[in-house]
Amino acid sequence: MNILLIDDHALFREGLSLLLERLGFPLVTLQARTIRDALAYVTHPDGIHLLLMDFYISDADGLQGLLKLRQAFPSSAIVLISASHDLGLIREAVLSGARGFIHKSAAVEAMLAGLNNALAGLECFIYPEDLQPERSAKHLTHRQREVLAQLCLGKSNKEIGRALSLSENTVRIHLADIFRILDVASRTEAIVLAKSGVLFDRDALYRQSNQP
Amino acid sequence: MNILLIDDHALFREGLSLLLERLGFPLVTLQARTIRDALAYVTHPDGIHLLLMDFYISDADGLQGLLKLRQAFPSSAIVLISASHDLGLIREAVLSGARGFIHKSAAVEAMLAGLNNALAGLECFIYPEDLQPERSAKHLTHRQREVLAQLCLGKSNKEIGRALSLSENTVRIHLADIFRILDVASRTEAIVLAKSGVLFDRDALYRQSNQP
Repeated sequence: MNILLIDDHALFREGLSLLLERLGFPLVTLQARTIRDALAYVTHPDGIHLLLMDFYISDADGLQGLLKLRQAFPSSAIVLISASHDLGLIREAVLSGARGFIHKSAAVEAMLAGLNNALAGLECFIYPEDLQPERSAKHLTHRQREVLAQLCLGKSNKEIGRALSLSENTVRIHLADIFRILDVASRTEAIVLAKSGVLFDRDALYRQSNQP
Repeated sequence: MNILLIDDHALFREGLSLLLERLGFPLVTLQARTIRDALAYVTHPDGIHLLLMDFYISDADGLQGLLKLRQAFPSSAIVLISASHDLGLIREAVLSGARGFIHKSAAVEAMLAGLNNALAGLECFIYPEDLQPERSAKHLTHRQREVLAQLCLGKSNKEIGRALSLSENTVRIHLADIFRILDVASRTEAIVLAKSGVLFDRDALYRQSNQP
């Protein structure tokens, strides 16, 4: 398994590299200081399975760098690691193809569990204690949250309507409102955002959607 | 030897803790997330030999936190570790009793050598590549730099005058100008600043002062 660490600061990269040994499987940790250095690993013979990148890299704006890497490593998991508290940026990162976000205040074990998830194709989001993602969903009404939760279960408009005792047309109107409020263009984008935990506490979302 | 790491981010603290094992002597690494947590170690039975702290800690402004720790651990070496490029802050930190500054872009071996120095009572300053401390001495004339270099050798005004073929009174005027430009109140402060490398490349200063 090849993991590429991208961070301006050698001390953080080196320390992280030692921490990753605790993942418990054979691992090659590669390091890059810049996006440019990272792009050189595109030709790595075994490929890169996971890119773990700081959001702010000196040679690129955070999102720009992420998009370049997303394009260059289409089949790798990309997880951001950052000290940022900016939910807007995290949201953009998710929509730009990041599979996760790990705050630098995370405990080591939480980070390792998250990376295991990311390598298994799942999302991994570890927010700092003082950041409550659900606050950013404050512009959604209770009903809109219910619709979104149903959407995240992969249901069609008809099925959502049946589950919530709404007409299909009402569901459509709710979804249009939700897309507008969240500033997303499609069902998929809305689902990605909701599942990232950027909008809600994810567990709460599923608890809600499993209620009768 | 007890080293206390103070940083908001668990991942950085944990990584650093592993890197410090390379110092090569028996070591206890303690960790604190906040200044408040760090102050609890004042009562540690064997004392704390070195505090390695991030400049920005969530529960205190950088300098405030440093001053609190300086007061609470009067005989410990304090070294800042930071991603900051702000020479003014580093200067304040030195004047507030920090024995060193290590930029987060430092190589591990450079950091370890610096900490060894700090534990031996010497200063340790590791700046990022793109920060040239000597730039901040741009307001000193060549002659003023010569006087400052002599001052750093511990010479009296009379001795400085003799070394540079200046009258004692001229030396006094140069020193007054230097103090005003550097915004320091005493010979000691000027020396601390100059030795910290915040003003000059330190080697260049000594090369200059050893010239005939």
